[in-house]
Amino acid sequence: MSSERLIYLPLGGAGEIGMNAYVYGYGKPGKERLILVDLGVAFPDMDSSPGVDLIFADISWLRERADRLEAVFVTHAHEDHVGAVALCYEALGAPVYARAFTANIARAKMEERGQSPDVVRTVSAWPEQVEAGPFTVGFLPVSHSIPESAGLVIDTPAGRVVHSGDFKLDPDPVVGEPFDPDLWAEVGKPGVKALVCDSTNVFSSHPGRSESEVGPEITKLVANATGMVVATTFASNVARVKTLAEAGHRAGRSVVLLGRAMRRMIEAATETGILDGFPRVISAEEAADMPRERLMLIVTGSQGERRAASAQLARGKYRGLEVKEGDLFLFSSKTIPGNERGVIRVINQFSEKGVDVVDDSSGLYHVSGHANRPDLERVHALIDPQMVIPMHGEHRHLREHAKLAEAGGRASIVAVNGMMLDLTGKAPTVVDYIESGRTYLDGTVKIGALDGIVRDRIRMALNGHVTVTVILDEEDEPLGEPWCDTIGLPEIGSSRAALVDILEEDLNQFLMRAEAKTLRDDDKIEEALRRIVRQTSQNEIGKKPEVTVVVSRMR
Amino acid sequence: MSSERLIYLPLGGAGEIGMNAYVYGYGKPGKERLILVDLGVAFPDMDSSPGVDLIFADISWLRERADRLEAVFVTHAHEDHVGAVALCYEALGAPVYARAFTANIARAKMEERGQSPDVVRTVSAWPEQVEAGPFTVGFLPVSHSIPESAGLVIDTPAGRVVHSGDFKLDPDPVVGEPFDPDLWAEVGKPGVKALVCDSTNVFSSHPGRSESEVGPEITKLVANATGMVVATTFASNVARVKTLAEAGHRAGRSVVLLGRAMRRMIEAATETGILDGFPRVISAEEAADMPRERLMLIVTGSQGERRAASAQLARGKYRGLEVKEGDLFLFSSKTIPGNERGVIRVINQFSEKGVDVVDDSSGLYHVSGHANRPDLERVHALIDPQMVIPMHGEHRHLREHAKLAEAGGRASIVAVNGMMLDLTGKAPTVVDYIESGRTYLDGTVKIGALDGIVRDRIRMALNGHVTVTVILDEEDEPLGEPWCDTIGLPEIGSSRAALVDILEEDLNQFLMRAEAKTLRDDDKIEEALRRIVRQTSQNEIGKKPEVTVVVSRMR
Repeated sequence: MSSERLIYLPLGGAGEIGMNAYVYGYGKPGKERLILVDLGVAFPDMDSSPGVDLIFADISWLRERADRLEAVFVTHAHEDHVGAVALCYEALGAPVYARAFTANIARAKMEERGQSPDVVRTVSAWPEQVEAGPFTVGFLPVSHSIPESAGLVIDTPAGRVVHSGDFKLDPDPVVGEPFDPDLWAEVGKPGVKALVCDSTNVFSSHPGRSESEVGPEITKLVANATGMVVATTFASNVARVKTLAEAGHRAGRSVVLLGRAMRRMIEAATETGILDGFPRVISAEEAADMPRERLMLIVTGSQGERRAASAQLARGKYRGLEVKEGDLFLFSSKTIPGNERGVIRVINQFSEKGVDVVDDSSGLYHVSGHANRPDLERVHALIDPQMVIPMHGEHRHLREHAKLAEAGGRASIVAVNGMMLDLTGKAPTVVDYIESGRTYLDGTVKIGALDGIVRDRIRMALNGHVTVTVILDEEDEPLGEPWCDTIGLPEIGSSRAALVDILEEDLNQFLMRAEAKTLRDDDKIEEALRRIVRQTSQNEIGKKPEVTVVVSRMR
Repeated sequence: MSSERLIYLPLGGAGEIGMNAYVYGYGKPGKERLILVDLGVAFPDMDSSPGVDLIFADISWLRERADRLEAVFVTHAHEDHVGAVALCYEALGAPVYARAFTANIARAKMEERGQSPDVVRTVSAWPEQVEAGPFTVGFLPVSHSIPESAGLVIDTPAGRVVHSGDFKLDPDPVVGEPFDPDLWAEVGKPGVKALVCDSTNVFSSHPGRSESEVGPEITKLVANATGMVVATTFASNVARVKTLAEAGHRAGRSVVLLGRAMRRMIEAATETGILDGFPRVISAEEAADMPRERLMLIVTGSQGERRAASAQLARGKYRGLEVKEGDLFLFSSKTIPGNERGVIRVINQFSEKGVDVVDDSSGLYHVSGHANRPDLERVHALIDPQMVIPMHGEHRHLREHAKLAEAGGRASIVAVNGMMLDLTGKAPTVVDYIESGRTYLDGTVKIGALDGIVRDRIRMALNGHVTVTVILDEEDEPLGEPWCDTIGLPEIGSSRAALVDILEEDLNQFLMRAEAKTLRDDDKIEEALRRIVRQTSQNEIGKKPEVTVVVSRMR
């Protein structure tokens, strides 16, 4: 009789879309040998994480158990799956396994962060398998919006787990392997304990559309264009980039790739042999000498990112190229929720230059990379697992996906980041709650999302900042008057006098009258001066600023 | 022969959706008598305006010509049309005209800002007219998503202008007057020089749907609900609030209105006699004692606003009421671009509590308040103006609307904020560019968007802040060591020592070696110390913070 168990613990990606990180373990409780599936990033925003560079899962739990970690498996090369592998390698120290294209991207990230690329090992597709302690893991090709995405077939002493990765059911994905129902059925045949499954599109009720459907529409659009054509999509969507390039080529246009990520992805796809027949590409310099109606630019910046090629073209020149009245700009992409403002800004800037902008609102020029609701039902049936564990989704997606699975007669559960499940039995059970959270890469330092550092920055953004300087002599008496500096506050308030003058006067009056025991105590002075600054500012300008009080003593 | 002219000058709302403010003038160039149509606000966001309370058009141009301003006309009571009337009244001093419901809301705003409500004068609908210098202005009832919206019929010596306001063509708007094509045709009959026209929905290609269409769907949804039903919409959409309340009432539920704005709007509609037959409303306290399946809450917060009733219910209790598993939450509203993150946060919080959330993605539970593309074409034809001036839209909307008008054989032009048009001739001509922009209400102070105050706050949010204090003695020699305080920065950097210690050491080394002429010069010291802080921080933590240097001298 064995007391060993199979556990599942999402550290990121379950209860959000982004920063995926899923732990599996097998062994005696507390002694399980572990593997990690994916280690991705999420992106900061001004609302909650101003100044932050990248966000990834808090891996403290895993770091403390690094000696039990056998390996890291990366399903595909999207940033929310591979983006933190290099950032966290030092803390984890386990080998990283991926298919060739993903490994190519992961190795470049390792080098960027000063790590050895050799720890990333290339694995061929199923039926090749990797041994990792009690786990045997194979990479099952799935179609998605990036080449060589993989589901993982994870064999354990407690049975087989299929971890879907991000996927869609595409019979004709343009680049890479089509969805192969026979292969999925074969994987399911020996019996599957758990399907841990992408939930992104569970609210989309129609079957997903094939990548191949957008080609004819894009070709038609480009063929009818009269000026320069500029198109954007996710750089990693190599199939789409190829479709766009071919549409340009067919219309007798020379193709230019703009943006570092765009060139990097095509390079990786070419190096790993998954991209052939890509039309010849010319440089921006060559393009500058050509008539604009003979050009097709494919550019980064589908989400309106300020520094990307699309936004730079919208504002002015990019590498010597410039849009003009009568040009066409195509968003062959959807806007990720939260990025609307940036995208709309770019559209309006193009509008000001007389450029016609076409977006995906017609549904003609973009398809999603994720399985829709009927596709999920089909996969549940094909794999036929005992239980379905929804992942890769916000809470609403996980909940809906769990309902869908239960409606199909399978055990399911909504497991969010930090919930440890035991999958050994017939149905998943919660066995522990781990402290999970977010780590910020802030400049070059890793900080906790709840450390208060970013909260302080948000407060300064909302309230402004006042520095108060006070000097006290050897007898703890004020030496001269207190001094105020403000940042981010109006100069003049309701008194029609300079805010700093009013503040300094109020602070001085307080210090003149303060008792000796207050003046001897730095904490008391600080607290009193802070309170006065906040109260006076409230009266003068209707805001309570953040305050730094510096007390200098001559003794 | 006359050299007088009719001018149009948008100060806000043309090139954006929000903070509407349109000036019309008639007279000799530079001496035109003026009227202002609408004076609304836009709302701040963390990306561009953290800590700001409200945004409205920079009215400097108008303020300098306040002696020529005859009146302000407000088309309807949405915040982006009426929100800044009270804020700017002191600067303009002209009487404010509006229909009864709008006037009721405007008067409350005047009182809130300590102004007399009496300057707001109530006008009946067309054919009543107001004389304002060379202008004669009538309020033409139009259907929209708020009661008593009006287009303005502006008669001038140069001809008639129709200023559409925000409108849709609704034959059955539930509350208020239906669209009356005969009335519009009658207004157009004498000949109309210019139609200045709402452009919001120019990209929506199907005819707009009636407010009355959502009633049966909402009734069905509520009738089938088993737990408590909570619904949100814009508080000002009185027709929708009535529809929701009636759906609850029909299902045998008691209706509760939650949120100050919700109660205020129903009160205004009742006071002005435009709302009758509204079901009896009970208080939150009464509701707390009732079985939840007998309750229908109608709440503020359709845009996910953190402090609104919906967000508070999503987080926990609101006025003693609480959602539970099996309850239903309905967004009878659309998410305004930019508010997606807040709305999604609320949806996921409800999901965590087991509440089923229904949004407008089905199209069943919400209709827009603006005229779609075919509706715009219909109005162009009904009014049959010489020229169409698109307003109330981002650049892309104005451009598309101008194209539409030109395709219909009418003169048009894309006129954005600050462009002064002469409408006297057969087609609009640009006669001047006025400096336009945004004013922020920041706490209680009005500041310019480009004053640098908010920019400094954004920089602190991105980069953090360091205060450096240095004391110099009578001989300009450092007295003790420099002192650093940080806010919003990590404590430990790459040296594995406290960041402030490293900073203080570097600053001290500089001061020990600094030449006397540097130490005598505050500006030189400040510049040098700031540079050192930024460089050392870059090395230690990969960020260059904002720096305040305080130099105190004993002399």
